[in-house]
Amino acid sequence: MTEALHVGIAGLGTVGASVVRIIADRKEMLERECGRPITITAVSARDRNRDRGIALSGMRWFDDASALAVSDEIDVFVELIGGEDGVALDSVTKALKAGHHVVTANKALLARHGFDLAKIAEDRGVLLNYEAAVAGGIPVIKPMRESLSANTISRIYGILNGTCNYILTRMEDEGISFEECLADAQRLGFAEADPTFDIGGHDTAHKLSILTSIAFGTRIAPDDVYLEGIANITQADISAARELGYRIKLLGVAQRTESGIEQRVHPTMVPFSSVIAQVAGVLNAVAVETDILGELLFSGPGAGGNATASAVIGDIADIAKSRPGFQHGPVFGTPAKDLKPYKRARMKSHEGGYFIRLTVYDRTGVFAAIARRMADNNISLESIVQHSTSADDQNDNKTVILVTHETTESAVRKAVEGITSDGHLVDKPQVIRIERAG
Amino acid sequence: MTEALHVGIAGLGTVGASVVRIIADRKEMLERECGRPITITAVSARDRNRDRGIALSGMRWFDDASALAVSDEIDVFVELIGGEDGVALDSVTKALKAGHHVVTANKALLARHGFDLAKIAEDRGVLLNYEAAVAGGIPVIKPMRESLSANTISRIYGILNGTCNYILTRMEDEGISFEECLADAQRLGFAEADPTFDIGGHDTAHKLSILTSIAFGTRIAPDDVYLEGIANITQADISAARELGYRIKLLGVAQRTESGIEQRVHPTMVPFSSVIAQVAGVLNAVAVETDILGELLFSGPGAGGNATASAVIGDIADIAKSRPGFQHGPVFGTPAKDLKPYKRARMKSHEGGYFIRLTVYDRTGVFAAIARRMADNNISLESIVQHSTSADDQNDNKTVILVTHETTESAVRKAVEGITSDGHLVDKPQVIRIERAG
Repeated sequence: MTEALHVGIAGLGTVGASVVRIIADRKEMLERECGRPITITAVSARDRNRDRGIALSGMRWFDDASALAVSDEIDVFVELIGGEDGVALDSVTKALKAGHHVVTANKALLARHGFDLAKIAEDRGVLLNYEAAVAGGIPVIKPMRESLSANTISRIYGILNGTCNYILTRMEDEGISFEECLADAQRLGFAEADPTFDIGGHDTAHKLSILTSIAFGTRIAPDDVYLEGIANITQADISAARELGYRIKLLGVAQRTESGIEQRVHPTMVPFSSVIAQVAGVLNAVAVETDILGELLFSGPGAGGNATASAVIGDIADIAKSRPGFQHGPVFGTPAKDLKPYKRARMKSHEGGYFIRLTVYDRTGVFAAIARRMADNNISLESIVQHSTSADDQNDNKTVILVTHETTESAVRKAVEGITSDGHLVDKPQVIRIERAG
Repeated sequence: MTEALHVGIAGLGTVGASVVRIIADRKEMLERECGRPITITAVSARDRNRDRGIALSGMRWFDDASALAVSDEIDVFVELIGGEDGVALDSVTKALKAGHHVVTANKALLARHGFDLAKIAEDRGVLLNYEAAVAGGIPVIKPMRESLSANTISRIYGILNGTCNYILTRMEDEGISFEECLADAQRLGFAEADPTFDIGGHDTAHKLSILTSIAFGTRIAPDDVYLEGIANITQADISAARELGYRIKLLGVAQRTESGIEQRVHPTMVPFSSVIAQVAGVLNAVAVETDILGELLFSGPGAGGNATASAVIGDIADIAKSRPGFQHGPVFGTPAKDLKPYKRARMKSHEGGYFIRLTVYDRTGVFAAIARRMADNNISLESIVQHSTSADDQNDNKTVILVTHETTESAVRKAVEGITSDGHLVDKPQVIRIERAG
């Protein structure tokens, strides 16, 4: 028998406990697949005495994750602590420098320090695997790093946050407001007590920035992401979208343009008949558009202890199958030393279709004024619908829904500013970008 | 610089020519990713003088693929000849025995001889990669072999034949008959002159049998597949499906049951709101259901020179990243020596919902007779709809559509036989299985 792969796990929360349990339960299966046993040699967590419902006997306990990280009893350090700095950063850095492979599910850590960590890993010739950091249990990182070698990626987009997708799906299915839905999601444990990180799009931005680096061979730039969350989405938007053949999703999109690479996270109208439009509830999906292949889509569970553990164990198994002397592929697909600085495209130059919903005073000339502002900015319209909602009727207002052909962000902003300054608007205008999707 | 990976390619049709062109065009990119150059050293094809629009200078020409296969000028033998026996089998066998890695896109070869070839590859410690053999450009084999180590798969299902999906999509979109659609697909080059292999489901069965082996750790059994093609699907089925909230797809499904493993290929009703229902035209999709993850779905282009070449080059790049001494994962996920014989589940024991469309004489008591036959076989009905199509009206017939709750194949067959023997049917009954889909 070949020698076992010795694994140290830091962090025994939901995911860590699942990893320990599944590796114990599937010992034989994993050994058969990997050609050698996977043994958890040591663990580290904050509270040694907490009952996690898992057997830790035979594993050495470390109070200090960084001490575990450099222990010569392990081959692989699995970081499930979380947080972009602090213990997570310290322990992962030390593990790599000590020549240990690292598996992590920590998207914040990678978004912030992935470039530096990749350099250390590649210098030391060890693997840094992080399938679980983006889209949870869905194999996305590995196919992008390893299966698309022949392809130049032009665009990547995805539903990367289960909480947002859960809220938008329920709003559509049940006709309830964002606030009501969020409260319910919090009650059911699908949303955090402070939901800003999810619903504001920050979590999606972290994950997107990692995908961007793999897709375009650029350094990770988690702060250079155009960001709009879902808190402003209303039932009026959802029902107008449906009437027009669209569904609203919070997408992260990265796209190569002439002026640089766009990274944007915002509520997006996708065609109702597209595959991604059917990705419902807490599920995630990632679509990759390449010159050779056209479009690929991966969908599945994006979170949860078991789904995340599945990705972590897949990463560990990959290491178990490798052997000393094996030349590993680069952490982000391109060697870290060759990753180019990220060049941000200006959001104002973004090109695409737009959905614009305006609540206007019901008076003569409003329609004509709106149409003029559009024409003045060279925006051609795919459709313009004027109708009254029940709220409109009560208040003697009208709703105008515009769908533009491909135009620019800058033209749309100018047109909407013009319409606002004309004084016909009862309410803040709503602008939602439309995304092509297969 | 590390030494180049030397590749020999046998077969220079559409896919082979794409592989040669793309490797030449993306030399630097591939070298950066793989850490060493990929060089095509030698090629083989039937006709040396044919103009393929690609540069073959610097590559040694072999008239005999099997001579290329054993040449000590190559590290990897790429088989793009096709056919389940003959030159393809001979050359791949010889290449593996000579200690060369093999990449192939040949599903028929693998379905028939994959088990034996895997044994040779694993004995010799070389890789046998075949991402392109199933679902063309979509990374499916690699994620299943390498990313799902922790998972036990319970079911796998997919749209594995682009021709069938193209025909069913156009039938639905345009309201045209199967025959008309097939003729048009042949004219446009989306269907072969002899389309039996595609529309009869044989191609899907080959691909399914490979997926079954990876999913369930069993030997490939391409002949033990329950098979129904799409030639009997009519507009009446498609429109009835739509009214009931379903769409018809030709699926390959493999599923673990108490009595064995089901392998079946048949027209299938999938919920309209499922992700796979939106996979349209020539696209393919594969869904994998596991105990830990729930359901994953991969969709994308399943055929075409470039998409297939993308998968072939991904397989070559994987080999380029490996090094002598590297212990490769098993060809079918489980080591060939541990693959269990396939135990076929009886189709009569299949459990699921059924759609049954009957054209009956418009006379008293028919409805009651049908309902009685269902009840006698313990089949409970989700819905029963009686209506007249325009053809019915002309002929004084009626259409009865039944949708059953979960029942067995055997009960449905008995009930339909009973109804047929009652003498109320004008026409052959139509039975279409319903599949759960996420």
